[in-house]
Amino acid sequence: MNVSLVNIGDELLIGQVVNTNASSMSRRLIAAGMDVRHVVTIADDADAIRCTLIEELKAYDAVLVTGGLGPTKDDITKHTIASIFNSPLVENPEALATVKDIFERRHYELTPINRQQAWVPQCCTVVNNKVGTAPCMWFEGETIAQALHLPSDTRKVLVSMPGVPHEMEWLMDHEVVTRLQHYFHTSHIISKNIIVQGIGESFLSDLIEPWELSLPSYLRLAYLPQAGMVKLRLTARGEDLSLLQSSIQYAVDTLYPLAGQYIVGEDCESVPEVVASLFRHRHLTLATAESCTGGYLASRLTAMAGCSEYYQGGVVSYSNDVKESLLGVDHQTLTAYGAVSEATARQMAEGVRTRLHTHFGTATTGIAGPNGGTPNKPVGTVWIAVAGPQGTTAQLLQLGDDRQRTIERATNSVLSLLVKEVMLLPS
Amino acid sequence: MNVSLVNIGDELLIGQVVNTNASSMSRRLIAAGMDVRHVVTIADDADAIRCTLIEELKAYDAVLVTGGLGPTKDDITKHTIASIFNSPLVENPEALATVKDIFERRHYELTPINRQQAWVPQCCTVVNNKVGTAPCMWFEGETIAQALHLPSDTRKVLVSMPGVPHEMEWLMDHEVVTRLQHYFHTSHIISKNIIVQGIGESFLSDLIEPWELSLPSYLRLAYLPQAGMVKLRLTARGEDLSLLQSSIQYAVDTLYPLAGQYIVGEDCESVPEVVASLFRHRHLTLATAESCTGGYLASRLTAMAGCSEYYQGGVVSYSNDVKESLLGVDHQTLTAYGAVSEATARQMAEGVRTRLHTHFGTATTGIAGPNGGTPNKPVGTVWIAVAGPQGTTAQLLQLGDDRQRTIERATNSVLSLLVKEVMLLPS
Repeated sequence: MNVSLVNIGDELLIGQVVNTNASSMSRRLIAAGMDVRHVVTIADDADAIRCTLIEELKAYDAVLVTGGLGPTKDDITKHTIASIFNSPLVENPEALATVKDIFERRHYELTPINRQQAWVPQCCTVVNNKVGTAPCMWFEGETIAQALHLPSDTRKVLVSMPGVPHEMEWLMDHEVVTRLQHYFHTSHIISKNIIVQGIGESFLSDLIEPWELSLPSYLRLAYLPQAGMVKLRLTARGEDLSLLQSSIQYAVDTLYPLAGQYIVGEDCESVPEVVASLFRHRHLTLATAESCTGGYLASRLTAMAGCSEYYQGGVVSYSNDVKESLLGVDHQTLTAYGAVSEATARQMAEGVRTRLHTHFGTATTGIAGPNGGTPNKPVGTVWIAVAGPQGTTAQLLQLGDDRQRTIERATNSVLSLLVKEVMLLPS
Repeated sequence: MNVSLVNIGDELLIGQVVNTNASSMSRRLIAAGMDVRHVVTIADDADAIRCTLIEELKAYDAVLVTGGLGPTKDDITKHTIASIFNSPLVENPEALATVKDIFERRHYELTPINRQQAWVPQCCTVVNNKVGTAPCMWFEGETIAQALHLPSDTRKVLVSMPGVPHEMEWLMDHEVVTRLQHYFHTSHIISKNIIVQGIGESFLSDLIEPWELSLPSYLRLAYLPQAGMVKLRLTARGEDLSLLQSSIQYAVDTLYPLAGQYIVGEDCESVPEVVASLFRHRHLTLATAESCTGGYLASRLTAMAGCSEYYQGGVVSYSNDVKESLLGVDHQTLTAYGAVSEATARQMAEGVRTRLHTHFGTATTGIAGPNGGTPNKPVGTVWIAVAGPQGTTAQLLQLGDDRQRTIERATNSVLSLLVKEVMLLPS
């Protein structure tokens, strides 16, 4: 069963708003075993809406539409859909009750324009939206077949939802996905991520080629490179869930003999998630000292709920004074070797570990650019260090001249080094 | 001149990666006077790529494609495009030189699979990608007309770019947008932002009315209020770029005598940029103490090049121990009022200001959630404080239950408070 998503809104097309609805809908549909094949973004324009919906309905089993359901004149999705189905708008009592209820709770007066929110095409089923005033509209089977001149036993669905992310998410989670699963006979899709570090995409591809070629046809492998690491994603699709699960597990087990030394985590989306998972399971604590990454590393860790279990805090030591006063880096070290040096990186990691009383301390110090490079230390030169119970390890990186990318790659690299050092601890 | 964007990648369709390329491409195209009409996301699937590209090329003037250009087996965009144009793949010397150069700089060996990156369809123009190994491919005019059986004078363009955001952005900024402007003879659009603070939108409008009425017709003014400030955006559209530039500069120059006392920055898009501009122009220094924002505030400041001119560093005091040891918050204060309190926020801001010897210190402490809330201090409760030469100011915020949104809003709020405090200083 395949799905097309149509996201309607001028603000999406001009790039003012990033389309997060598409990915958040996709994740929910994929997890329920549906196959998202096509995502289209179009303007609040009647012709574009009409043509796109008709085309998508002809090509896909289900078409999920967001946006253009507000009460103002620029929102025309409902009227356009009504005209596709040649169906008059009628006031829906359930939808009206919801609108009234929301206005009463907010102590607002119900104006005629808001009351219009409860009008829907006669041929639709109203799916109650408990978190907003725009009703969700469901069209299926013969209604679609007639409008599009398709055979009368056509099984297709069109769903129109509000574009407000939390309303769409509530509807997907409470109504739409389950209704789609019931209407269509859906197969299962499961996937697994394996995070690989310390080897480039093409070298990895060469290394694991025999394994890749031996995968069964219902398993697909994708290479997803991210700053300083590669995420391998295995996706399995089929009717038999337990077969899919055991096939994926077998594939992962047979990958280790080939590439195990580069695997730093499973089922994580990013290196910070690998770190969080490791530290929580092993009851370890962490502190961070950052110069060139400037708080980005800390922000990646603290973006995850529950990080206070293992993360104590850190120092953003942008100036040399702060490296000395808050981290205890020697003045002599800074004078003799400079802020971007192995000695400074080591002292930063050790200093933050000692002063914050943690099992591990990390440090990043480098030249993020675009200025500040020298012939000996060009822009992109970064020293990273990890201090732990078994000593301190440092590495030199050359990360190129893109400031944000250098910050991201230095962050991922020092977290990867941290993962390696934790893996070396006796468990 | 209208444009369609086609973003190729399984990771986008399954929702694992949010499609930020579409909005970042749209913003650049819109700013250059082009009209983005359609955005389509499809899988790494030959049939889908072929059908979509042909349809989009028939419907739009320019089709910009991202993704599927990596060296691995799942990347099939290049081969599929070659088959659409029935054009053999040939090794391109320029592209090969770039690939070689990148591998040499990284001290990697050039494998056959990487060398393949330099093979492109014979009928394309290679646009050199200086930041990655996948070449950007440009197809135009007769090549497209022949393949799609269109009139031979058809003026259409197809551009295939890597999906890695920073490579796509480099190509758009340095090559693709300019080439599109030349090919389609589009008019220029340039704009300038002026950030105003300390005066409401309607008062500002009254104050600058005579100036606004004197603007030439090809200059448009927009009021864009955001987090405690108003962004004035001047947009100029026309054929003569140097006329547009000098007109905008003249308009800005003549605005200062009327409203200069409220202008806190030019060409800023965000509050952190305003802070950077203010601190650099006034030769002030800043230090930050962060609990609930966990390094996010520091990372926003340090994402901007040149921040070391004014930003000394900061402390991410996630645990109470760190608030005491590195910021000097009283143990009694933490026990009596808790970590999320006005007293703690004030002591954090004052502590980081004193210990890092800066003009200003900021603090954030709150409950980002989803756990940790109490009836008195629900999730989303945040105290912010700014300490400066004229004393300390604190504010209580209630930011709701979305963790990332709370972190972002707390950051913007404390930086806005900081801007207000700086504006109160005698200049």
